[in-house]
Amino acid sequence: MSAPTFTKPARPTHDVIEMESAALVRWGMGDPSGFLEICAPDVVYFDPGLECRMDGLGALTAYYESIRGKVHFDRFELVNPLVQVVGDAVILTFNYVSYAGQDGPSRWNCTEVYRRAGRSWEIVQSHWSYTVAKRA
Amino acid sequence: MSAPTFTKPARPTHDVIEMESAALVRWGMGDPSGFLEICAPDVVYFDPGLECRMDGLGALTAYYESIRGKVHFDRFELVNPLVQVVGDAVILTFNYVSYAGQDGPSRWNCTEVYRRAGRSWEIVQSHWSYTVAKRA
Repeated sequence: MSAPTFTKPARPTHDVIEMESAALVRWGMGDPSGFLEICAPDVVYFDPGLECRMDGLGALTAYYESIRGKVHFDRFELVNPLVQVVGDAVILTFNYVSYAGQDGPSRWNCTEVYRRAGRSWEIVQSHWSYTVAKRA
Repeated sequence: MSAPTFTKPARPTHDVIEMESAALVRWGMGDPSGFLEICAPDVVYFDPGLECRMDGLGALTAYYESIRGKVHFDRFELVNPLVQVVGDAVILTFNYVSYAGQDGPSRWNCTEVYRRAGRSWEIVQSHWSYTVAKRA
């Protein structure tokens, strides 16, 4: 399977944007480990399929393993990614669009909070939601 | 109009939980200023009614003023609020439920990132989404 393509953002970049993009490339090939490897043990997580916040890397790992191999897209964009730095915290927000085959675009809102971990960063909070949604 | 009631969380609290609850009490009386007064100039914002991330207090003020007086609920809960502290950043996440009249519960996911501002805190990122959603 080929990796999804994406356009690197034109704004001056930050390591966390590179990390996020790399994890999404793997995600688009059905591999959730790109995210799991950069999440902190105390990560908390929201997505529109869950009944409540998910707490901790153990729970997130079980959840993501249950969909391993099931997510595929050909192309994605981080739209207007913005980095806000507060000391050792980096708040990355963006709109996200992915395209798979002949399907229309899949549009999301995303907030990732990264915390400094030595010379790198780890995700401590991840919130994914649909751009323009209604209650299920 | 009476203020909505809520149950204070049992967990050890943090100032930002008090700030969030106080802003929500005003929000439930149709008054968005409780939030606007604690948002930073560089706040970024997502909710399920928007086509993309909203950037800056000016934009958020215009948006919230357009719904002033239109939001009312009788009771709300912050479900399992969690505070993650990273230096001068505090990440507050919770599930939120509000009740208005005979309507069923309105359920949300929320991530607020507060940044220290002198002796207090201000919101730099706010992400609200429906708990269990579908694309609109």
